Amino acid sequence: MNSPDDLHQRPIVSVDLAIFALAPDGLEVLLAQRGAEPFAGSWALPGGWIHVDEDRDLEAAAQRVLRDKTGVAAPYFEQVGVFGDAARDPRGWSLSVTYMALIAKEAVTLMHGGNATGAAWHPIGSDTATIPLAFDHAAILKAAVTRLRNKVEYTTLPVHLLPEAFTLSELQAVYERLLGRLLDKSAFRKRIAEVDFIEPIAGEMRRASNRPAQLYRLKQARSTVFFDRTI
Amino acid sequence: MNSPDDLHQRPIVSVDLAIFALAPDGLEVLLAQRGAEPFAGSWALPGGWIHVDEDRDLEAAAQRVLRDKTGVAAPYFEQVGVFGDAARDPRGWSLSVTYMALIAKEAVTLMHGGNATGAAWHPIGSDTATIPLAFDHAAILKAAVTRLRNKVEYTTLPVHLLPEAFTLSELQAVYERLLGRLLDKSAFRKRIAEVDFIEPIAGEMRRASNRPAQLYRLKQARSTVFFDRTI
Repeated sequence: MNSPDDLHQRPIVSVDLAIFALAPDGLEVLLAQRGAEPFAGSWALPGGWIHVDEDRDLEAAAQRVLRDKTGVAAPYFEQVGVFGDAARDPRGWSLSVTYMALIAKEAVTLMHGGNATGAAWHPIGSDTATIPLAFDHAAILKAAVTRLRNKVEYTTLPVHLLPEAFTLSELQAVYERLLGRLLDKSAFRKRIAEVDFIEPIAGEMRRASNRPAQLYRLKQARSTVFFDRTI
Repeated sequence: MNSPDDLHQRPIVSVDLAIFALAPDGLEVLLAQRGAEPFAGSWALPGGWIHVDEDRDLEAAAQRVLRDKTGVAAPYFEQVGVFGDAARDPRGWSLSVTYMALIAKEAVTLMHGGNATGAAWHPIGSDTATIPLAFDHAAILKAAVTRLRNKVEYTTLPVHLLPEAFTLSELQAVYERLLGRLLDKSAFRKRIAEVDFIEPIAGEMRRASNRPAQLYRLKQARSTVFFDRTI
């Protein structure tokens, strides 16, 4: 008879994080080099066990792991899903509860100074890291990248990676770098106007380019607006 | 030190199911009356423990629980998410990995005959069951209803609740009952034509109503097509 009182019948549960940032060449993910078996020396998504005496809930566990590994709290944090089977971890039947976060790279660079965990940013290829990953983390990362890109297609999420004032060209560039593909300029501007989540800042222009460009800001700070169709 | 070898540090993990069907009055969910503590006598989402010696993966565990509780395999099965905290179960820190399924009610009715588990269909109010539920199952059910309705808004999923041949009015009625709101007829037909996932059956008409209506069928059986905007 299986029961929660038979502790050997309980699966192992970890909380793992796909922490994304935007680099000039595209999307990057924060990976940690494993110091112990299994998969010692391999790169993996940063993660940890649930501390049943300390963590209030799953999200608190994920925020604790993120804070421990990067020194920052995520402005945007979402559950990707749970991945569990008998074979993914040699230590036994295990579950990975995976969260993703999108953070500004500058917020994390500082902690890298004296960091001993071997954490580093790695580029995302078409949909996963360009190096082999421990466990089933390549498949989990692929699911997280898909989730992030769907979110980018359908929401105003990317605006949170920009400074407070930005041009429409800068906004389009962030969407393009996150999605890994170019967008049509007039169709993009039409969609942005339809969703109506940014507003021009009266009298503020960016003067760096060949002709001045209007600066915009978010209408409602911090909230993520959902579109009713893809960008 | 927390570690998977310290079994007392492992959370309890259950797999719980939000099994939906469509009744004439709207969406219903299959609930089971609990026979044991905690929450003995209360209604709850049907669920079970992961059998670490038997279940290949989470979905296999969910399919086993569904089969045991309803006698059917789900044609459509999706992970809703994982819900976990220190307080939701008096037995300890616990996780519920929740799946949802949408099934034809007729497929399940038969097994109800000699069923001793006290399972029964209950109507969904605006977003959860109309009776109190054990644990945090009301919140979990609410998340599952939201996920199902989003899926209905964006996919051809409802067509799987219809017989092989159906009229456009019957298709619209299924969407409306799942969503719990009426749809504009001409806008609905325009969207369905755009997505292009059904085809008229040459020469087949439904003659019951005041004037004959064209019968349609799915173009590609079994696959669920995603829309690029809401229905």
